[in-house]
Amino acid sequence: QSNISSQNLLPAASGKGLRVGILCAKWNREIIDRLVEGCLKTLTDAGVRREDIVLMDVPGSYELPFAAKCLTDRSDIDAVIGIGVLIKGETMHFEYISDHCTSGLMRVGLDSGKPVIFGVLTCLTHDQAVARSTGESNHGLAWGRAVVDMCALKNQCKQ
Amino acid sequence: QSNISSQNLLPAASGKGLRVGILCAKWNREIIDRLVEGCLKTLTDAGVRREDIVLMDVPGSYELPFAAKCLTDRSDIDAVIGIGVLIKGETMHFEYISDHCTSGLMRVGLDSGKPVIFGVLTCLTHDQAVARSTGESNHGLAWGRAVVDMCALKNQCKQ
Amino acid sequence: QSNISSQNLLPAASGKGLRVGILCAKWNREIIDRLVEGCLKTLTDAGVRREDIVLMDVPGSYELPFAAKCLTDRSDIDAVIGIGVLIKGETMHFEYISDHCTSGLMRVGLDSGKPVIFGVLTCLTHDQAVARSTGESNHGLAWGRAVVDMCALKNQCKQ
Amino acid sequence: QSNISSQNLLPAASGKGLRVGILCAKWNREIIDRLVEGCLKTLTDAGVRREDIVLMDVPGSYELPFAAKCLTDRSDIDAVIGIGVLIKGETMHFEYISDHCTSGLMRVGLDSGKPVIFGVLTCLTHDQAVARSTGESNHGLAWGRAVVDMCALKNQCKQ
Amino acid sequence: QSNISSQNLLPAASGKGLRVGILCAKWNREIIDRLVEGCLKTLTDAGVRREDIVLMDVPGSYELPFAAKCLTDRSDIDAVIGIGVLIKGETMHFEYISDHCTSGLMRVGLDSGKPVIFGVLTCLTHDQAVARSTGESNHGLAWGRAVVDMCALKNQCKQ
Repeated sequence: QSNISSQNLLPAASGKGLRVGILCAKWNREIIDRLVEGCLKTLTDAGVRREDIVLMDVPGSYELPFAAKCLTDRSDIDAVIGIGVLIKGETMHFEYISDHCTSGLMRVGLDSGKPVIFGVLTCLTHDQAVARSTGESNHGLAWGRAVVDMCALKNQCKQ
Repeated sequence: QSNISSQNLLPAASGKGLRVGILCAKWNREIIDRLVEGCLKTLTDAGVRREDIVLMDVPGSYELPFAAKCLTDRSDIDAVIGIGVLIKGETMHFEYISDHCTSGLMRVGLDSGKPVIFGVLTCLTHDQAVARSTGESNHGLAWGRAVVDMCALKNQCKQ
Repeated sequence: QSNISSQNLLPAASGKGLRVGILCAKWNREIIDRLVEGCLKTLTDAGVRREDIVLMDVPGSYELPFAAKCLTDRSDIDAVIGIGVLIKGETMHFEYISDHCTSGLMRVGLDSGKPVIFGVLTCLTHDQAVARSTGESNHGLAWGRAVVDMCALKNQCKQ
Repeated sequence: QSNISSQNLLPAASGKGLRVGILCAKWNREIIDRLVEGCLKTLTDAGVRREDIVLMDVPGSYELPFAAKCLTDRSDIDAVIGIGVLIKGETMHFEYISDHCTSGLMRVGLDSGKPVIFGVLTCLTHDQAVARSTGESNHGLAWGRAVVDMCALKNQCKQ
Repeated sequence: QSNISSQNLLPAASGKGLRVGILCAKWNREIIDRLVEGCLKTLTDAGVRREDIVLMDVPGSYELPFAAKCLTDRSDIDAVIGIGVLIKGETMHFEYISDHCTSGLMRVGLDSGKPVIFGVLTCLTHDQAVARSTGESNHGLAWGRAVVDMCALKNQCKQ
């Protein structure tokens, strides 16, 4: 019974021919870099060519949705990952940026019709962010796969 | 007096002819599978044909709205259920994903004019999610019925 | 001085000729029924004919905005009341449904240009919901009046 | 140095010729009345004619955005103030109404291109609301000025 | 490995020819002034001419999104910074204004296609706001750079 839901599941998707934008907030650079490496690994493992991946910096996570819009407006970009590392500080900055960078990336995906992957860590401590960007727990690995899977799902839905 | 509000209520709705998409986040697979089984039971009990139900995976609950948009864009899909299981962890990930997957599914339903059922458990513990996916408390049962009821309501509203 | 703000106030509005949709979530049925009775009382007291009031069920409060959209899309419906009773439970379901059913009903009102009254109790206990649906404190009474007042305001604003 | 940011500042704006709508929720009437008086004082002090100010009631703060839309749709209204007094009660009603009346008024301003001033007190106690509607602390004074300033800013931005 | 993500990074951007609007809420003027100075320093350091920077006041942070819309509607404005200082008080005013000024500025950026930089401090104490507007920690410095970087990113994305 446990495999009922896998009857019509997507086949292991290929990323061949996909052109992907990766946006990186500048804060917590070392962690961001590892997350990007994770994305690049799973993207290229799935067949995305390294030269078809565009990397761009943005000042902070609040700018991710706007930059995602700029990239999804391009006809030669199929999907975007917005990567940021937000860590709770003394003020309420963390909460408002986290909330509206999440809603903004969602909006850009729905407006554009192109997958926009939420690659933002919203952590209470620096250690939490390190743990989620290291080794097998590197969330970037999942985000790279998510791009490929969502592009496959989108194509499968086309009539 | 207690039946005042049931005067114009929908008749027991039939799902005959409905074509339904079920989207499943990949996390907490065992729980998701039971929720899907619940949906399938009430959908088919209502007359929806098994071959008219499309099952698709998405990487996580944040991707449910985008996938729901892809499915509602199809002329051969009448309604969508977005299924996910979110469980509170150490970071604030749970809060932001829960919030914007809820608002995103709402947006897709209102934008598309097709019922998009919110099938996401937003739990504080794993046990809570298990309880809500088991036996008579399996929320999937209600979600399947909700699809049929909302499609009936939509049709009833057509002039 | 206390009557400055009442100089240009709306006259006691009449509901004559109004056609109103009332949507009811199925949960906490006994409370919902009393709230509906409250709405019906003030609507009919204001001159709305009982046969011009359409009652419809929806599975839960999350479905209220979609159903409100279906009703406001009809040319023979002037306004909608979305009624639900949400009570805080063990999980975070209450918070996310409350939040986005509130925002969804707001959106449908602004999108459609027809009054959509928020008739959802967001309570921490069952007792709170009972208190707000009983006797003179029955919030349904206010919601019925709100429909009439908002339709009058809308007409008054037409040029 | 402290005057750097005032180099291009708006001149003391005049409200001559402006036509303003003031919307009032019916709850906490005594406080609302003082807030309205505050608005009227600064509006008329700035040159807005009393006969060019339209006062209208709405049932509660949730209805402010819809009513604001009705007023901004009129060609003879230049700006709107939505006034309400929300006080924390036993249930979560306060939180959801406060949140979405705030977002709704924002939406109507951005959709319409006319200033919609947020004149809602979101207080934890009745005393807080009294304090913010009395004497020099009467927030209505600031809201009236805000209308005039924002209309001036809008005109200054026109090319 | 730490430089993987910097392969395609933006070159040090120039602000030559950019025309920038800076919006300032009137509250906490002394802090606002220092934040503006910070913006002006990095903008002019990047080559933006002082006469191409427009400074405008708004009554409070809630008005920042509307004013940003007015400015982005102008063809001679390339980007906007919305500056405000919100400090937690006794009521819930802080939370609702913070939330929806954040979402409103995001909306205006995405609607207009012009960078709208979030320059609002959301602090729990006055000291926190002072610290974030002083010397090297002056957040205005980063906001000025963000304008230049985001305009460069936008241009780089144009096909």
